[in-house]
Amino acid sequence: MKHIPNRIYLPEDRIPRQWYNLRADMKEKPEPLLNPATGKPVTLADLEPVFCTELARQELDDTTPYFDIPEPVLEFYKMYRPSPLIRAYQLEKYLDTPAKIYYKFEGNNTSGSHKLNSAAPQAYYAKAQGLTSLTTETGAGQWGTALAEACSFFGLPLTVYMVKCSYEQKPFRKAVIETFDAKIIPSPSSTTNAGRAILAKDPNTTGSLGCAISEAVETAVTTPGCRYVLGSVLNQVLLHQSVIGLESAEAMEMIGEYPDIVIGCAGGGSNLGGLIAPFMRDKLTGKADPDIVAVEPASCPSLTRGRYAYDFCDTGKITPLAKMYTLGSGFIPSASHAGGLRYHGMSPVLSKLYHDGYMRAVSYEQSKVFEAAVLFAKQETILPAPESSHAIRAAIDEAIKCRETGQAKTILFGLTGTGYFDMTAYENFHKGNMNDYVPTDEELEASLSQLPTFS
Amino acid sequence: MKHIPNRIYLPEDRIPRQWYNLRADMKEKPEPLLNPATGKPVTLADLEPVFCTELARQELDDTTPYFDIPEPVLEFYKMYRPSPLIRAYQLEKYLDTPAKIYYKFEGNNTSGSHKLNSAAPQAYYAKAQGLTSLTTETGAGQWGTALAEACSFFGLPLTVYMVKCSYEQKPFRKAVIETFDAKIIPSPSSTTNAGRAILAKDPNTTGSLGCAISEAVETAVTTPGCRYVLGSVLNQVLLHQSVIGLESAEAMEMIGEYPDIVIGCAGGGSNLGGLIAPFMRDKLTGKADPDIVAVEPASCPSLTRGRYAYDFCDTGKITPLAKMYTLGSGFIPSASHAGGLRYHGMSPVLSKLYHDGYMRAVSYEQSKVFEAAVLFAKQETILPAPESSHAIRAAIDEAIKCRETGQAKTILFGLTGTGYFDMTAYENFHKGNMNDYVPTDEELEASLSQLPTFS
Repeated sequence: MKHIPNRIYLPEDRIPRQWYNLRADMKEKPEPLLNPATGKPVTLADLEPVFCTELARQELDDTTPYFDIPEPVLEFYKMYRPSPLIRAYQLEKYLDTPAKIYYKFEGNNTSGSHKLNSAAPQAYYAKAQGLTSLTTETGAGQWGTALAEACSFFGLPLTVYMVKCSYEQKPFRKAVIETFDAKIIPSPSSTTNAGRAILAKDPNTTGSLGCAISEAVETAVTTPGCRYVLGSVLNQVLLHQSVIGLESAEAMEMIGEYPDIVIGCAGGGSNLGGLIAPFMRDKLTGKADPDIVAVEPASCPSLTRGRYAYDFCDTGKITPLAKMYTLGSGFIPSASHAGGLRYHGMSPVLSKLYHDGYMRAVSYEQSKVFEAAVLFAKQETILPAPESSHAIRAAIDEAIKCRETGQAKTILFGLTGTGYFDMTAYENFHKGNMNDYVPTDEELEASLSQLPTFS
Repeated sequence: MKHIPNRIYLPEDRIPRQWYNLRADMKEKPEPLLNPATGKPVTLADLEPVFCTELARQELDDTTPYFDIPEPVLEFYKMYRPSPLIRAYQLEKYLDTPAKIYYKFEGNNTSGSHKLNSAAPQAYYAKAQGLTSLTTETGAGQWGTALAEACSFFGLPLTVYMVKCSYEQKPFRKAVIETFDAKIIPSPSSTTNAGRAILAKDPNTTGSLGCAISEAVETAVTTPGCRYVLGSVLNQVLLHQSVIGLESAEAMEMIGEYPDIVIGCAGGGSNLGGLIAPFMRDKLTGKADPDIVAVEPASCPSLTRGRYAYDFCDTGKITPLAKMYTLGSGFIPSASHAGGLRYHGMSPVLSKLYHDGYMRAVSYEQSKVFEAAVLFAKQETILPAPESSHAIRAAIDEAIKCRETGQAKTILFGLTGTGYFDMTAYENFHKGNMNDYVPTDEELEASLSQLPTFS
């Protein structure tokens, strides 16, 4: 049998120099974003006050399959990429499974996650356009850190609205983000109309991604030379994150492997959409038929319990409307939920693919997720982020199924990041204080009843 | 000009399968450890109650140049090694220097540092001998985390005595160490005679590595089936850490480079001794003459201001005596000093080499070190540990010298770890609260006057 090293790094001449735009190969395209004022598909002109122009173009382009990665972004990528594709030999041995488990590890950079893959081009394009500042939101803090890093590198001031409960659970994220000279504001805040309105309704709110997005967008459109950037959900983000999947596919080809199952955690879809891109391409073009699995928290179950409908991307209802799986833009997950994946919606691309049966979704309560995280840390020497641990949980369960059926499947999952800034959650888990609250049907119904009526 | 990739990973067939024992090539050997009871060189029988037998053998062997790395340790190494040798292109560009800067990055594992390189074999040998538990001390927490990881993997219960001020500054270290099922006790504690004696003298002491060592050793020798393990200073640790240098030398050979300067931070010497091993071998055997530089904190300056003398390795004076550069075993660095490198002494091997003129030493105050850390993080996307940042500071200063002289030197430094658990120190730096306290001559003299009299 051929020997496969534990870690596979692509040689320089096999590193992707283009991103892949999954929409180009979809026969049925995702529904377009709608302008909430007109109910019509958004245009470049609609998007330009919010996004930098090149990114707005990428957002709207559903036909060009490949985009060249700009040279300065390739240079930036080279500092921390290619990321390793790792064979989880020790985990396999521990699980006593005939399955082969691979994971693509994106945590080897200071932002601690895959988010840097989109932060770099977003900061680069903004700088190239002559913009003078950016705003964004961050949930678990990974995106905020990544964007702060990229903005510091390309020389752009940044303001980060951080979901309040994460801000409080992860005090050191602030110090990291400040190391890269960005300004950080817990959201909801009194610095915006959107934030003030949410605080007026519920002064004790723990915040949500949707709410932080409203504040960041409002600040961007009211500040000259400023634009808003987002770390997930958007088509442009999935485009940039395709580098994860392209590298994974190339590395698997190098070692003569192809995944039977591809598993990714899903919040807004940035990692999942990036990881699966080339495998979904194979599926769409009939070249292969891998089983593609989205894993989400039971506390914020947009794919497994949400509705496929037009909804706002933010709580303040100032963004365009997207057709996606959503829990309603007013949905705020329980504060006891650790880490990211707190978004009420899901990438429109992934939503469409899920709706059309190209992938499936599962959800887990968080104590099951942390069990998997600790087991993984002990076997593989990497302390995973809670978000990534959703994918670990599903991969372990698939490997256990293989043990039972005797099938030697090849499993690939995305290890999106490290858990160094999630130690409060790990502490709660060790103390047995993990709360597995799951929203009731009534709660979801109440939130979904607020969907825009024309959806 | 030949293109050199940003990150160089050794292919599997070039990964070292042996450790290198620097002492074998030293014509003048380091002075032996002495039994404080007899004043005579320690024997295997003296060491066996404290250390596991194979490790005690390695400690005493100053003639065997290469030791095979046991197969299970090689398997463990494969999970996170080889570590990358990284060309700091962005830092070079920022500094506008003709120098070529390389760094060996050891932070890509959950312990966050190079410490895992010695933790793995120490846990493995202890398990192989049939021991049932281990004790250790940890300063900044990196060693404690690494050993907890290794003990969890090889199946050995562990108790970690953590220097009290680090325990308080780095609350999340506890959560990580507990993830790997180890027990963690702030030192000095009331669980040992040594701890109680120190607390009786000074109930408000912030602790020191020397004191934590006393407690860990006492617990080991009074518990059946238990031994003590140490993450630095000892010859066995330098032996295991030689994997850093061997990989670096091999990677540099692959790209046709050889360092003019090799720079490492120095606390007890584990990283420095490992990194320089093959380059010092070249120097000892006349094959090359690189400039080898130890960098230490001005607040704990054992090489630059200490004395070369026999001293205890611990504060409680229960360990063997080592001939080394020391500030006196009672020396406790200012609590305002961030991170590790708090040890009063220095590896006897490195002390001897320094004493004989084979290397030089410099020291920096911590605000200069954090300036370098932030600059590095912004340019290279890695948030460095405060310890590692001492080496960064020195490397930057050497690169600036090159800019001034026009010399295109090749600089290699050790980036021992990441700073994710040092955010309190980074916060203090951002707030301008960094205290650059340096011990006065009188303070050092008072501590050195307590050296054992026969030294």
